[in-house]
Amino acid sequence: MAITKKPLLLLIILAYFLIISVVVAQRETSPSQQTRLQEARQCRLQRLTATQPNQRIQSEGGVTELWNEFEDQFQCAGVAAMRNIIQPNSLSLPNFSPSPRLVYIEQGQGLLGLSHPGCAETYHSGQQYKSPREGSSPRGQQGQQSQRDQHQKVHRIRRGDIVALPAGVAHWCYNDGNEQLVAVSVSDLNNNANQLEQKLRSFYLAGGQPQKSMQIQQQQGQHRETFQNIFRAFDENLMAEAFNIPVDVVRRMQQEDERGLIVRVKGEGMRMIRPEEEEEYEQSYQSRRNGLDEVYCNMQIRQYLDNPKEADVYSRQAGRLNIVNSQKLRILNYMDMSAEKGNLYPNAMHTPHWTLNAHSIVYVTRGEAHVQVVGSNGQRVLDERVNQGNLFVVPQHFVSTIRAGDNGFEYVAFKTSGQPMKSPLVGYTSAFKAMPIQVLTNSFQISSQEAQSLKYNREHHTMLLPPRTGSSS
Amino acid sequence: MAITKKPLLLLIILAYFLIISVVVAQRETSPSQQTRLQEARQCRLQRLTATQPNQRIQSEGGVTELWNEFEDQFQCAGVAAMRNIIQPNSLSLPNFSPSPRLVYIEQGQGLLGLSHPGCAETYHSGQQYKSPREGSSPRGQQGQQSQRDQHQKVHRIRRGDIVALPAGVAHWCYNDGNEQLVAVSVSDLNNNANQLEQKLRSFYLAGGQPQKSMQIQQQQGQHRETFQNIFRAFDENLMAEAFNIPVDVVRRMQQEDERGLIVRVKGEGMRMIRPEEEEEYEQSYQSRRNGLDEVYCNMQIRQYLDNPKEADVYSRQAGRLNIVNSQKLRILNYMDMSAEKGNLYPNAMHTPHWTLNAHSIVYVTRGEAHVQVVGSNGQRVLDERVNQGNLFVVPQHFVSTIRAGDNGFEYVAFKTSGQPMKSPLVGYTSAFKAMPIQVLTNSFQISSQEAQSLKYNREHHTMLLPPRTGSSS
Amino acid sequence: MAITKKPLLLLIILAYFLIISVVVAQRETSPSQQTRLQEARQCRLQRLTATQPNQRIQSEGGVTELWNEFEDQFQCAGVAAMRNIIQPNSLSLPNFSPSPRLVYIEQGQGLLGLSHPGCAETYHSGQQYKSPREGSSPRGQQGQQSQRDQHQKVHRIRRGDIVALPAGVAHWCYNDGNEQLVAVSVSDLNNNANQLEQKLRSFYLAGGQPQKSMQIQQQQGQHRETFQNIFRAFDENLMAEAFNIPVDVVRRMQQEDERGLIVRVKGEGMRMIRPEEEEEYEQSYQSRRNGLDEVYCNMQIRQYLDNPKEADVYSRQAGRLNIVNSQKLRILNYMDMSAEKGNLYPNAMHTPHWTLNAHSIVYVTRGEAHVQVVGSNGQRVLDERVNQGNLFVVPQHFVSTIRAGDNGFEYVAFKTSGQPMKSPLVGYTSAFKAMPIQVLTNSFQISSQEAQSLKYNREHHTMLLPPRTGSSS
Repeated sequence: MAITKKPLLLLIILAYFLIISVVVAQRETSPSQQTRLQEARQCRLQRLTATQPNQRIQSEGGVTELWNEFEDQFQCAGVAAMRNIIQPNSLSLPNFSPSPRLVYIEQGQGLLGLSHPGCAETYHSGQQYKSPREGSSPRGQQGQQSQRDQHQKVHRIRRGDIVALPAGVAHWCYNDGNEQLVAVSVSDLNNNANQLEQKLRSFYLAGGQPQKSMQIQQQQGQHRETFQNIFRAFDENLMAEAFNIPVDVVRRMQQEDERGLIVRVKGEGMRMIRPEEEEEYEQSYQSRRNGLDEVYCNMQIRQYLDNPKEADVYSRQAGRLNIVNSQKLRILNYMDMSAEKGNLYPNAMHTPHWTLNAHSIVYVTRGEAHVQVVGSNGQRVLDERVNQGNLFVVPQHFVSTIRAGDNGFEYVAFKTSGQPMKSPLVGYTSAFKAMPIQVLTNSFQISSQEAQSLKYNREHHTMLLPPRTGSSS
Repeated sequence: MAITKKPLLLLIILAYFLIISVVVAQRETSPSQQTRLQEARQCRLQRLTATQPNQRIQSEGGVTELWNEFEDQFQCAGVAAMRNIIQPNSLSLPNFSPSPRLVYIEQGQGLLGLSHPGCAETYHSGQQYKSPREGSSPRGQQGQQSQRDQHQKVHRIRRGDIVALPAGVAHWCYNDGNEQLVAVSVSDLNNNANQLEQKLRSFYLAGGQPQKSMQIQQQQGQHRETFQNIFRAFDENLMAEAFNIPVDVVRRMQQEDERGLIVRVKGEGMRMIRPEEEEEYEQSYQSRRNGLDEVYCNMQIRQYLDNPKEADVYSRQAGRLNIVNSQKLRILNYMDMSAEKGNLYPNAMHTPHWTLNAHSIVYVTRGEAHVQVVGSNGQRVLDERVNQGNLFVVPQHFVSTIRAGDNGFEYVAFKTSGQPMKSPLVGYTSAFKAMPIQVLTNSFQISSQEAQSLKYNREHHTMLLPPRTGSSS
Repeated sequence: MAITKKPLLLLIILAYFLIISVVVAQRETSPSQQTRLQEARQCRLQRLTATQPNQRIQSEGGVTELWNEFEDQFQCAGVAAMRNIIQPNSLSLPNFSPSPRLVYIEQGQGLLGLSHPGCAETYHSGQQYKSPREGSSPRGQQGQQSQRDQHQKVHRIRRGDIVALPAGVAHWCYNDGNEQLVAVSVSDLNNNANQLEQKLRSFYLAGGQPQKSMQIQQQQGQHRETFQNIFRAFDENLMAEAFNIPVDVVRRMQQEDERGLIVRVKGEGMRMIRPEEEEEYEQSYQSRRNGLDEVYCNMQIRQYLDNPKEADVYSRQAGRLNIVNSQKLRILNYMDMSAEKGNLYPNAMHTPHWTLNAHSIVYVTRGEAHVQVVGSNGQRVLDERVNQGNLFVVPQHFVSTIRAGDNGFEYVAFKTSGQPMKSPLVGYTSAFKAMPIQVLTNSFQISSQEAQSLKYNREHHTMLLPPRTGSSS
């Protein structure tokens, strides 16, 4: 009898074992927050991939597309990437982020406003307002304010611009054009400016992630924190007192709505807030260059990155590179980020090179190319054709090369340094050219002639290489 | 018989299971070092709380009270807070910390000495000493030294002062007043100056945590490293040789005693080392502003933070803010910290705002207030009345507002940036006021009149808002 | 029967328990990647040890010896140490590292070349080359290039030099002397320049870790990433096109060979690339001090650290300290590292002291000494005799003292700050001397006379103390 019962006992025990084992295993291997944090800043990448966004937040006036920030390549670089598509006559609602962000305007045009704390409102919208509170207001200069709407500078942004959004500064964007405004952006989560943890977030003053999309996220086990409204959570009476407005206005302002992050503008649109011509702005700049105004309030936040005449590297046969770094756009000194636009002619190459002091996040804006990246493990971690809309990371010191396809190739590369330095293997400024011939012959067991070829066959080229023709090989 | 024995076997097995389970669970879920490190820099706070110190180290001449540095809010901000209460005629023993520390003198007065390495001793105590080694000494200028005690500058500190203690600089503090000296301080563990890990520590040259309190700590599973004597551990003969003093003196210096971190001064007190009047110091400053002296040795380390005439923000109806940042106190450039003192009149408000580039650690010095903080999850993470002696963290970018109670409210806020920037939602420099009317109407689905009110009803106020009166609403 | 079988059952169960326990324990305590990361930056060291390298990579022309970077002391300091021994007429192959590195030349001499991207090649080797491509080349200035080999400056390095290798800059080193070139180096993995994780790595343009040594490493469960060739992994056709050279040359360049990281130079050696005399270099410096050249391309990268006439601290009875910091060698401003050479006479002492802003990695170059280090736990974490070839870490703020043996003691200390500050307990600039007598008497419960001795008995000494003689005690 004892014998017959023992197997049962054994079974119970084994079942218990099994449960324990599973519990222990789960605890240790679940892709929890902690695991992610542990893996953060791990750059032992076996494989990079050119990827598309994997999450989509549909709003009334557009779409926000997010790349998976927990992918190894983004964790290694400490960045998050997204693409906003704003419909004509639509407004991306005011928000701010804990990390600095660079935006590339891939298509369309719009108006961008930043609320720099401590900077004066010296711009006016042309529209005439009738003061709603005449007589009841304690203000003396009522007259003027009722005439024009005072606010901070509104920036015109256009296709090809790089736009710098400093950490913590509230901003909004309005598409006043006739086509979709497409903006690709990279946030440097690992930046010194971010004292919160390495995580993509935006704090919305109005709107916020629609309930629908959050439910989907939750089903996928993702966190709810990415785009949150921080105005709604405050007590309505406290806000009414703070703003000195009726509590029912606050209540309406705090109302949940399903318009999301981007809203359609009611009525005739916001064309009246269009900024005057660039020239006028530049002029007003000159006259007020002093004190805080000069260093902060009037800082340029955008630069056109696609002007062939301003190319930093230009090759008649291979293409051009346009760079915006902290020397050209001073605000990048504070953000420690920069960007490069590359236009490669059909079958041209970007030399194999590494970046000494920055990760590069490359977004393909046109065409296709064959990209190879060699990692710290001495293996090809990326070796594929990349196409328009793809994005991939080239970590610091990883060696990469790009060979444009038959229709050429265009990209924008976001960098995690305000003054990135590239070290090419080939060309006028190459690492090999800086070495004596004998170092090369002994390093590679090649002849002096071959070493000479290695050093000098591309010496008239910098960064960009024309397709090899029969005559020169 | 087998049957009767099986339950026993089962019991043994189950007992074993239980033990294993407990061991495994403990290993994995105990608030161990590793878990803490994993959680460090996690700012997904569900709940903040205004807290009191949870640990108390009783010394002969006073008390050291520590807030629990492993609380989420402190881990997120990378700071540790403590309050020292030094009895009259008592001395806080010489020690240094791996992290920079800002101290607010809540009550009383005292003398503070810092040992800047590489700075000359140019101050003398008035007391006359008879040289103990006349004749036997190899020194030539014996005469002068036997007259006066040479040492570095001693600083007068008083209620309302902010005092800057750089990382690694040994300091001591003596209460020469008639009441308790109460000093509240925040250490920025996450500061670049700290190359050790994020952990509160002080290295004591004399004294140290009493055995009693350490035993309590150990029972609570806490680490023993917080306040350690680093002189006692050295070999006595080595020290005797180093100082060229008899080994029995070293032995006495190394003796464990139960006086703790703060000791009662024997006899008539140390009043003779009182520094001369401030004016004289200031004068001597002017004359020696050159070289290293200028940039380092003579740097001011304190500033009075409660002078109504020097208020940075002043409102006749609402109160005032006094700020000490790296522009006012140059040593804060090196420490990347700063502080703000707020005095709010009864029922006045601090506008809802976020700080762009710093965490804020708020300590309540008087009165009570209703505080709301909204976090990155879009929820109220703090919503409670805070009272004198409470301390709470407002993480970077989290939006907070304070409404003073019927007796007003005073606080000191420590910041993890030498030049913090606040972005208010309300008032002259508010984010909303910087936006065109149409952005507000479309963001919140409100009328132009309502948007006007939102922008302008508080336009004559900055940061501080008077209580709402019937007339203006 | 049941009784006889139960023990068997019990045994089975217990065996199973044992297995599970072991599995669980292994999972939790294995030196896996995650565990290492968790432990990184943990400085609660119970025990430091002066250690020797534990890994050895044999190459054709020398040996690379590595200290175990996963030892607690290196993890705490965020550094990795290694020693390269290059045979005469051998070449350390071109490579670059993600972290800045300081090198001390312990023995021998050599030539060092760095490939600064963006700097011109203005130096020539004397050797005459016949152009391999005359007639077929598209270059106009063919004439000159075929005469002399143009390359960047080659630096002479000699025994006693400190050499600065910035992150990401490719470099090679050739031993043109008659004895082994021994170079000890420390990489600051935790430096801001390194955006990859805290891990020692070098990227080799030629050569690489031999398969043999990697197999050994793998057997030991170590990672394969330390020294990898990043040229071999690229597609041969892509490289042929990039360099515009025949594909079979690329194929030979990419061939795996067992020569390793250091290769023997074929034939008569590379003596023709010897740089001209130092003086000439200095001269050419003066004339071209402008623009980028000045700030970057012509920056000195080496300084002799053993010149008695340039000692920063000198004592006739005790020895001397030579320091190279960012004020003396400007490139250290960018690297935030520095070094100190100490020469102690027999039985002399380095005062007990702590370093305010840096970890110190101490390598013993000659003699032996008794070293004591007291840690943040208030315990002696190091208390042993150290000998030539030993290396140990003194973490930031830990207090250490060195007492030279009967034959004196020499060391080089690498520091993780460009401008380190030491705070001594003893001597002219000591923490105690900066304090009033009464602070000392009350701190240590000693008499005024004893406090006087404590302050003044060593007041004529700075950092270095002569052996105590009978007369002065």
